[in-house]
Amino acid sequence: MSRLVMKFGGTSLADVERIRGVATLVAAEAAKGPVAVVVSAMAGRTNEMVAWVDSAGPPAPGLPSNDDEYDAVVSSGEQITAGLLALVLRNQGVRARSYMGWQAPILTDGAHGKARIESVDGERMAQTLESGVVAVIAGFQGVTAEGRISTLGRGGSDTSAVAVAAALGARCDIYTDVDGVFTTDPRIEARARKLERVSYEEMLELASLGAKVLQTRSVELAMAYRVPVRVLSSFALEPGQSEGRGTLVCDEEEIVEKRIVSGVAYSRDEAKISLLGLPSKAGTPAEIFRRLAEANVNVDMIVQSRARFGDSVNMEFTVGRRDAGRTLALMEAAQAEIGFEEARRDEEVAKVSVVGVGMKSHAGVAETMFRALADRGIAIQVISTSEIKISVLIDAAYTELAVRALHAAYGLDQVGEAAGAGAAG
Amino acid sequence: MSRLVMKFGGTSLADVERIRGVATLVAAEAAKGPVAVVVSAMAGRTNEMVAWVDSAGPPAPGLPSNDDEYDAVVSSGEQITAGLLALVLRNQGVRARSYMGWQAPILTDGAHGKARIESVDGERMAQTLESGVVAVIAGFQGVTAEGRISTLGRGGSDTSAVAVAAALGARCDIYTDVDGVFTTDPRIEARARKLERVSYEEMLELASLGAKVLQTRSVELAMAYRVPVRVLSSFALEPGQSEGRGTLVCDEEEIVEKRIVSGVAYSRDEAKISLLGLPSKAGTPAEIFRRLAEANVNVDMIVQSRARFGDSVNMEFTVGRRDAGRTLALMEAAQAEIGFEEARRDEEVAKVSVVGVGMKSHAGVAETMFRALADRGIAIQVISTSEIKISVLIDAAYTELAVRALHAAYGLDQVGEAAGAGAAG
Repeated sequence: MSRLVMKFGGTSLADVERIRGVATLVAAEAAKGPVAVVVSAMAGRTNEMVAWVDSAGPPAPGLPSNDDEYDAVVSSGEQITAGLLALVLRNQGVRARSYMGWQAPILTDGAHGKARIESVDGERMAQTLESGVVAVIAGFQGVTAEGRISTLGRGGSDTSAVAVAAALGARCDIYTDVDGVFTTDPRIEARARKLERVSYEEMLELASLGAKVLQTRSVELAMAYRVPVRVLSSFALEPGQSEGRGTLVCDEEEIVEKRIVSGVAYSRDEAKISLLGLPSKAGTPAEIFRRLAEANVNVDMIVQSRARFGDSVNMEFTVGRRDAGRTLALMEAAQAEIGFEEARRDEEVAKVSVVGVGMKSHAGVAETMFRALADRGIAIQVISTSEIKISVLIDAAYTELAVRALHAAYGLDQVGEAAGAGAAG
Repeated sequence: MSRLVMKFGGTSLADVERIRGVATLVAAEAAKGPVAVVVSAMAGRTNEMVAWVDSAGPPAPGLPSNDDEYDAVVSSGEQITAGLLALVLRNQGVRARSYMGWQAPILTDGAHGKARIESVDGERMAQTLESGVVAVIAGFQGVTAEGRISTLGRGGSDTSAVAVAAALGARCDIYTDVDGVFTTDPRIEARARKLERVSYEEMLELASLGAKVLQTRSVELAMAYRVPVRVLSSFALEPGQSEGRGTLVCDEEEIVEKRIVSGVAYSRDEAKISLLGLPSKAGTPAEIFRRLAEANVNVDMIVQSRARFGDSVNMEFTVGRRDAGRTLALMEAAQAEIGFEEARRDEEVAKVSVVGVGMKSHAGVAETMFRALADRGIAIQVISTSEIKISVLIDAAYTELAVRALHAAYGLDQVGEAAGAGAAG
C-alpha cells in the first residue's frame, strides 16, 4: 500500500471549523491507505507569539542568544493544531494521534530558529501508520541532540512534510491556498496557467527566486530523496477527489513534453548596492566580498563594469533588502581600504527571472528575454544566469510589465504542455 | 546554599508586562542562591484551549478517550509562559532556560488529564541550578512512560512546584494573588486574619474542604516529603523582600503555639441526596454505595436515621454537585432492588468546616460549633468529622452567617497565635 504524507498550512487550519474540513480530506485518503499529516500553526498564531517574544527584549550583554527560547514559545502553535486535528479526526471515526517534533522524533542540528533536519525516525512512524493510525505531526519543529526544541524557519512545515515523506518512502501532498504552481503569479498575469508537472530543479529555482508556493529547503530535500511532491488547494476540493489535482513536482525524466521555459518569477526583496570609482586591481572584489561574508550578508547578483572615464571600475551587487542599510554602512566604514569614490543604495529594484530545464539544450532563450524587455523600454541593470534560469534586475516600477511581457514572449499563456518550446525558437 | 522553588500562577503571568514583574522577583532570589521557577499558563489561556478541545467533539464510538490529545493541546499554555519568562529573565541579565515536562523530565502515570507525578529528575535539575542557571519549568504537565504529554488536573502547577522542590531538597514559595492562608475567606469575614503558620494536616483539610489556595495533591506531596511551602502574594511585593511574608505550611512540630481551630472553610460544590423509607436491613447501605462506586461517584458525608414512622430508615449523603443528577438517576433506576420509597436531590446546601490540629487533644470543640450554629438558628443536616476537622451540612442560604459565627466562636478574629486556644476552652 503506498504511503501518503499530507501537509496543511495555517489558513487551512485557522479555526476548529476549518480543521473539520481538513479532517474530512484526511479521512478520505486514510480510507485508501496509510496517511501521515503535517500541520502548521493556526494562521496568525505564530505572529502573535513572535510579537510576545520580541516584547521580552534582547538578552542582556554577555548572555547567550534567545533563539532557543524563541523556539520553545513559537513551536507551541503547531502543538495546538496537531492535537486539535487528531481530536477532530477521532470525532470523525478515524484513529489518530499527534506527534510533536521531539516525539516523532524529528532530529535537527542546533541552529535554533533556522534548524536543519538531520533525521526522522521513519521506522517507528511507519509502524503507527501500518497499524491504521493516522499520525498527525507538528510541522516546523524538531528536537536537537541536547533535547531542546528547535524550529526550521518560516515555511518550515513544508520541509517537515517532505522529510517525513522521505523517511516513510511516501509521496507528499502539500495543501495550500492556491491550486498549484503557476507559470507566473496570477495576481499579475490573469492568463497564468497552472503547470501539470514541474521538475525539482525548476521548482527549486522558482522557490528561491520569489515564488512563495514552497519553502526552498523543502524542494532541496524532495530532490535529494526523490520524493514526489504535489501542490494543491485544500479549498473547494471534494474529499477523496485529489487525484490529478494541483501540480506534481517530480524528476525531470518524468516530464514527457519538455518546455524551454516553465515559469516567470519575480522578487522585490532585494536591494542594489553600487560602489563607484573603484581602483582597477585584482584584489578589490575579494576585499569587498570577504567583508560581506564575515558579516553574514548574502550577495546574489554581481556585475563589474568599466567606469565612463579613466581606468577605474564600478561594482554593483544585490543583497536582501533587510541587509541593505547594514551593507552600505559596512562599505562606507571600509571606504579608505577598498578605495571607492562613492557608495549608493537602491531599493527600488526588482528581480525578474525565467526558469526552465529546456534552457540546457536550447539556444536563444536569453535573446528572447532581452528583446521582450527592450521592446517595452525596460532597462536591464544586472544579469545573472544558471543552467536553467536567467534573472535580470530592473527598476521596480516595471515589475508587472516585465512579468507579463516575458509570460507572453515564451508563450506561457498558450494551453498545452509544449507551449513554451514553441515560443522560444 | 539552600535551594528555592518559586511558583507563579496565571494572573501573575497574564501578559509580558506582568511576566517582567515576576522576573524581577525571581532575579532578586536568584542573586541569593539557586532558584527553579514553576509557571502556570497565562490567565484565561487554558480555558480558551479547553473550549477548542470541547468544540472538536467526542471520539466516535469504539475509539479511545481523547484525554491524551486534550493534554497535548492544553499543555501548550505553560510552554509559552516558561519560554517567555526565561526570555525576560535573560533580558534582566539572569541566566535562565525553560524546561517542559518532558525535558525536566517530570514522569507521570498514564492517567491523562489527571496524571500523578511518579518522579522528577532532581539530579540533572540540580546541576543546572548549581551552574547558576535559573530553571523555568512548565507546570501542570509531565510525560508518561510512553513518551506522551500528560497534565495533572486543574491547579496542577502547585503540585509540579512541590514535586520539583521535593526532588531538589528545596523549599517552595507559591506566589498567588492572596497574601497567604487566612482563618477564613476574607470576602465573607472582613476580620479574617492571615495565619503565620499552618500544619500540613490542617492545610490538607482546608484545601479539600474548599479553601482554594493550594491544590490538595500538592499539600499531600509536601507533607509526604516534608517540603516547607510558603504561600504569598506576587503583587505589591518588593523584590528580595519575601522573607517572613505569607503563610508557611510546615510540620506540626514547627508550630510553637498550637491553636485548637486554625480556620473555617466552606464549600458550595456539593449536593445532598436523600433516600427515604429504606428497609432496615444490614445489606442496604452496601447495595447503595457499591452502585455509586461503580459509577465513579465520590460520596463525602453520610448519615442514616430512623424514619419517623414504622421501622424503615432514611439515608442521606452528599456527592459533588456535578454528579447529583447522575446519582439520582442511578438510584431511581435501582429503586426496586434497593427498595426505598422516595429519592430526593437538594443542591441548596453548603458544607462548613472547622479545622485545627489542636482538636486532637481538646474536648468541647464540637460543642462550641453546634452551640454557635444553634444560637443563630442554623439547622445541621449532616455531620462528618476527622481527627482534626468537623464539617456540617447546612442550608446554603446560611453559609456566610455560619462562617462568621464560627470565626467568632473560636476567637479567630483575635490577634495572636494562641487566640484560637483561648476561645474554645
